[in-house]
Amino acid sequence: MNHTERSKLHRLPKRGSHDAQLVHAILDAGFVAHVGFQTEGQPFVIPTLYGRDGDKLYLHGSSASRMLTQLGKSIPACITVTLVDGLVLARSAFHHSMNYRSVVAFGIGQKVEDGERKLRALRTISEHLLPGRWSDVRVPSEKELKATTILEFSIAEASAKIRTGPPLDEEADYGLPVWAGVLPLTLEAKLPVPDLRVAEDLELPGYVLRFRKD
Amino acid sequence: MNHTERSKLHRLPKRGSHDAQLVHAILDAGFVAHVGFQTEGQPFVIPTLYGRDGDKLYLHGSSASRMLTQLGKSIPACITVTLVDGLVLARSAFHHSMNYRSVVAFGIGQKVEDGERKLRALRTISEHLLPGRWSDVRVPSEKELKATTILEFSIAEASAKIRTGPPLDEEADYGLPVWAGVLPLTLEAKLPVPDLRVAEDLELPGYVLRFRKD
Repeated sequence: MNHTERSKLHRLPKRGSHDAQLVHAILDAGFVAHVGFQTEGQPFVIPTLYGRDGDKLYLHGSSASRMLTQLGKSIPACITVTLVDGLVLARSAFHHSMNYRSVVAFGIGQKVEDGERKLRALRTISEHLLPGRWSDVRVPSEKELKATTILEFSIAEASAKIRTGPPLDEEADYGLPVWAGVLPLTLEAKLPVPDLRVAEDLELPGYVLRFRKD
Repeated sequence: MNHTERSKLHRLPKRGSHDAQLVHAILDAGFVAHVGFQTEGQPFVIPTLYGRDGDKLYLHGSSASRMLTQLGKSIPACITVTLVDGLVLARSAFHHSMNYRSVVAFGIGQKVEDGERKLRALRTISEHLLPGRWSDVRVPSEKELKATTILEFSIAEASAKIRTGPPLDEEADYGLPVWAGVLPLTLEAKLPVPDLRVAEDLELPGYVLRFRKD
């Protein structure tokens, strides 16, 4: 991975990495990105779904979206994906922390104009979120494709940060009678709720039951 | 809540609100914010813990942190909190969506310098994350307080966005033999993992067992 001043790991570099495999693994384990850009002196951070194909990342949305309109003007963006793995409870307030995996990627979006490529990018986003879904559903019509903007980002310049493991306390604090450890957190799927108009004999697809991001 | 062009709800305004109670409820249900700011023409989006006290939001971190150093220079920031509630599976690729609650807040951070106020802000962040923890742990020393930067943001200008409920398909698609509905997602706590040096007779605090954010 390339890295310059903007992607340099300033704080706690031991928690960070520019390893492409790690960056890709974290991106694949998440599905919501927070996208940052600035317009007229004001930064915006907007949550959105995404998909990854090799070292490309795809965002999509309504052509009327402020975010996609701005990002389509070739302004610099920052795309951050964060997975929360747990609360780290130390014996001192100061050493409390969070276990997490995150990727911060920098780049400039390129609008995907070609119909075939747009379709492929939408499939990438869909399969990133829920593998198997795309082949079950009605694919986008020409009109729907026109109403959709797709942006492609290179993730050549990105950094990953990870914190794992127990709290690290000051030696003098280990004797305090304070419970310390990690409270693991995961995003869990609950029982699927069928739409009221789903026919009763329609089986729940296996890929919905098996959904798991981690 | 105040709102100007930057906090105007452009897309799907029916999903949005400037209601302070709703904004506060979403902020209270989350604990990770994605903070956006721009420096030297490059936007950054960094995940961080936060706390809310009335209409103030607090961020904290090492005084060496790039984010806090930049935000301490009174540059505009955007603080976004997103809670993922479920995947919305429609019969057409186009109408897939996500159920979520999010807040986008705009403001300029003010450095909290006074020791007492810093301590109160740290307590706010701690109690926001895990109510009950603060009174159990060793409070920050003077040296630790000095190594910590606290920024206060007013959340007077913020908007909330919410999507709930089933997919909305094109009328013609309801007849397709495609399972549709919502796959609910929640952040769940797993069994706490005690640090290896926790005394065996030290009980797990009830507030850890009862942890719940939603």
